[in-house]
Amino acid sequence: MHPAYDELTRLWARTYRLSHLLSIAGWDRAAMMPTKGSSARAEAIAEMDALLHRLRVDPALQGLLERADGETLDATARANLREMRRDWLSSNALPEKLVEAKSLATSRCEHDWQTQRPANDWKGFLANFREVLCLVREEARYRADHSGLAPYDAMLDQYEPGMTAVEVDRLFGELQSWLPDLVRRVRERQSGQTVIEPAGPFPKATQRALSLEVMKLLGFDFEAGRLDESAHPFSGGVPEDTRLTTRYREDNFLQALMGTIHETGHARYEQNLPRAWLGQPIARARSMGVHESQSLSFEMQLGRSAGFIALLSPKLQAAFGPSPALEAANLQRLMTRVHPGLIRVDADELTYPAHVILRYGIERQLVEGSIEADDIPALWDEGMQSLLGLDTRGNYTDGCMQDVHWSAGLFGYFPCYTLGALFAAQWFAAMRARMPDLDARIAEGRLDGVFDWLRANVWEQASLLPTGELVTRATGEALNPRHFRAHLEARYLN
Amino acid sequence: MHPAYDELTRLWARTYRLSHLLSIAGWDRAAMMPTKGSSARAEAIAEMDALLHRLRVDPALQGLLERADGETLDATARANLREMRRDWLSSNALPEKLVEAKSLATSRCEHDWQTQRPANDWKGFLANFREVLCLVREEARYRADHSGLAPYDAMLDQYEPGMTAVEVDRLFGELQSWLPDLVRRVRERQSGQTVIEPAGPFPKATQRALSLEVMKLLGFDFEAGRLDESAHPFSGGVPEDTRLTTRYREDNFLQALMGTIHETGHARYEQNLPRAWLGQPIARARSMGVHESQSLSFEMQLGRSAGFIALLSPKLQAAFGPSPALEAANLQRLMTRVHPGLIRVDADELTYPAHVILRYGIERQLVEGSIEADDIPALWDEGMQSLLGLDTRGNYTDGCMQDVHWSAGLFGYFPCYTLGALFAAQWFAAMRARMPDLDARIAEGRLDGVFDWLRANVWEQASLLPTGELVTRATGEALNPRHFRAHLEARYLN
Repeated sequence: MHPAYDELTRLWARTYRLSHLLSIAGWDRAAMMPTKGSSARAEAIAEMDALLHRLRVDPALQGLLERADGETLDATARANLREMRRDWLSSNALPEKLVEAKSLATSRCEHDWQTQRPANDWKGFLANFREVLCLVREEARYRADHSGLAPYDAMLDQYEPGMTAVEVDRLFGELQSWLPDLVRRVRERQSGQTVIEPAGPFPKATQRALSLEVMKLLGFDFEAGRLDESAHPFSGGVPEDTRLTTRYREDNFLQALMGTIHETGHARYEQNLPRAWLGQPIARARSMGVHESQSLSFEMQLGRSAGFIALLSPKLQAAFGPSPALEAANLQRLMTRVHPGLIRVDADELTYPAHVILRYGIERQLVEGSIEADDIPALWDEGMQSLLGLDTRGNYTDGCMQDVHWSAGLFGYFPCYTLGALFAAQWFAAMRARMPDLDARIAEGRLDGVFDWLRANVWEQASLLPTGELVTRATGEALNPRHFRAHLEARYLN
Repeated sequence: MHPAYDELTRLWARTYRLSHLLSIAGWDRAAMMPTKGSSARAEAIAEMDALLHRLRVDPALQGLLERADGETLDATARANLREMRRDWLSSNALPEKLVEAKSLATSRCEHDWQTQRPANDWKGFLANFREVLCLVREEARYRADHSGLAPYDAMLDQYEPGMTAVEVDRLFGELQSWLPDLVRRVRERQSGQTVIEPAGPFPKATQRALSLEVMKLLGFDFEAGRLDESAHPFSGGVPEDTRLTTRYREDNFLQALMGTIHETGHARYEQNLPRAWLGQPIARARSMGVHESQSLSFEMQLGRSAGFIALLSPKLQAAFGPSPALEAANLQRLMTRVHPGLIRVDADELTYPAHVILRYGIERQLVEGSIEADDIPALWDEGMQSLLGLDTRGNYTDGCMQDVHWSAGLFGYFPCYTLGALFAAQWFAAMRARMPDLDARIAEGRLDGVFDWLRANVWEQASLLPTGELVTRATGEALNPRHFRAHLEARYLN
């Protein structure tokens, strides 16, 4: 008998059902909605956000959580209660006025950013962004007071529960001890290679058919999801109905294809969360780092492996016609080319962490108040020069204004991308230890081994365990960057 | 100063915003959702329905409505208050248990009907439908007690406020006094005509492009809406973002084209409801009869007029290639062919009312309790024989099981289709009186006169006036079937 716990599960199921409508409305806004629907949609979403917030801060919850804590619960229910408490603490950390003020300020900043970025208008951006930063600092203080964490840790904890800046420093520090030298060696090695650029145009309809074929190969369940288009690709919807988007460029098919493979990784995680628990916080994806580890398992670990590229090559030639550029050996060189660039989302596997390390360093100081918004460009230029040897002075568009995260108030998210790369490498190291013929299987198109491992160790685990335990149970050790290093050396120095 | 009224407008705006999410989720379910999303979607929608119901029956509303009644309000606010009271009465008429029971029973009946109909399984249908009917009768009694109307009138009033069975009897009786003879004369006349059937296949992509072109000609605002596909075409979404669907058959382009024109009529009404009042009940479409008058203004009055068909002909020949079947004179014969058939939605302009009269007679007796569900087939067979001379014995699929309305518990809706045809004829008679060159304008593609008249007299009027006043102000007289007769005689006997 656990009446308080049962009542809590009913309340969480209720907000889950209402959130379903928000998820679909959000997907629709990005993938379907005509322009004039925008303000009515924004109002509908804001009304629902407010309603859900009120449900989440209902004063009755505190008593229920306390009473449930004293009830006899099995391990699963106990874990679910732990996640409920996380939700509850997070929702109650902020006064409603701050939530509203941040929502308005970030909406304005993000909206204006869409035109300020192409116009390279840093000054215009600053005018909005100063207010966002001020509210984010206030948010971090509230979250810190409420949780007992340091302000930046309290922000990070929303996306990667249990992670701290100290740990990120340790992990990223270790990466930095060997990654720059590895990048140098790989670039030297690749400088002698000839790579043939595939020549377009690549018709959109053909690219779409190819994307669908590859999603099928990757096990996407089309009875429980869709692929559509949007300006910024994403994976949305609900676990029962995942909605992926991509974006096609007729001069370059790789961008949409690899983007689709990436989003399919996110989608399979969602599509395979434990059905019996859907609606409860325990059934949610573990963290954003683990989520990114799924997209990177698909896009990087699997998607750019020699075996998978050998599977892709005939499909590409069937779609676009035979061409030396689409032969496996050339494709592999093309898909593993290392070249420092200005844009994070276009970065290769080796230089990507530098983009994250740069942002992490800046955003942490912004939250802690040791620098101001005005200081960003100088720090950015300096970081890009020292980390990637690139000059970004005066180029805000492809510099510090390139990402939406800060305009949207998402401070503490960036580390998750590189944590995801580390997790993904560790998953595949564990898989290879168990399946020594993994690469041969992949080359034959037998991908079940990969999916079965991820299903058992990540997807179906959802939020049952804290992240640290999840990693240890799955791989026999804590998160360890040496697997990422071994992966990169094996792929790029062989 | 009218604080109670102001508070009411805030509350209604709130439910409007929340209903937006339901409308989009409903459209998505029909047009986009993959099969496995179905049960999570149903649960999300039911949760939101329940939440909206609770908002609508909030006991505080009664006091607010009473206080607002004593406040000094202008005519518009007074009309809005009248519509709020209608909403409130309707929401409070039924106990929550009955709402839930009806929702479950109709969901089951409608779901099973989808397979029972093709299987001609009347017995299986009856098992579910008896329960629906029982609950509908209970609903009608509650609504009657609450409103002081007769039970069937109370049901009808939900769709056509102010309309009564006595008035429907009078209008339909008048129709029946001349329509059967007109059908006979027109069929005799047409029996000597040769009509060339356009020969397909008509590729879906071409049909879609043609639909979009015709929607543009009809003034549909693509920045505030979309056209997609669904099994059963409909017009959904919200006034700020209307979502139409159609269904393409490659052997027959007219079905999708005329369906799209029909739905575009509904959509333009929604797209032109008064912006300043959106969110308030006064800004809603006046009634389902008036709504159908818009779709029929587009599909029948305008869409099958000689002038409009002359506009369509070159577009069709550009799309599908030149052909004698697509020349204007043949198209016109094709699109005005009168032929009694079993299926209401496929019926021509002259035999359509017979389908409605049949259903109205049966559903009224069902609600009043003078017949039982078991009596339907015999009454249906008898009615189809006497009204249209067709034998439907043993054919439930294309007989009494053809429509979804009764399974869905929508009793009182059917009369609106023919009321819509009467309204539409009266609108066009008034337009012609004001613009004697209307048909010449249409033939030249100058459709603004039609749209301007509808905008001023119907669209922007929304629910400002009761239906009777709306009709009188727009046309100088009460609803009068003689305009429908004159329209049919002019079109079919000339």
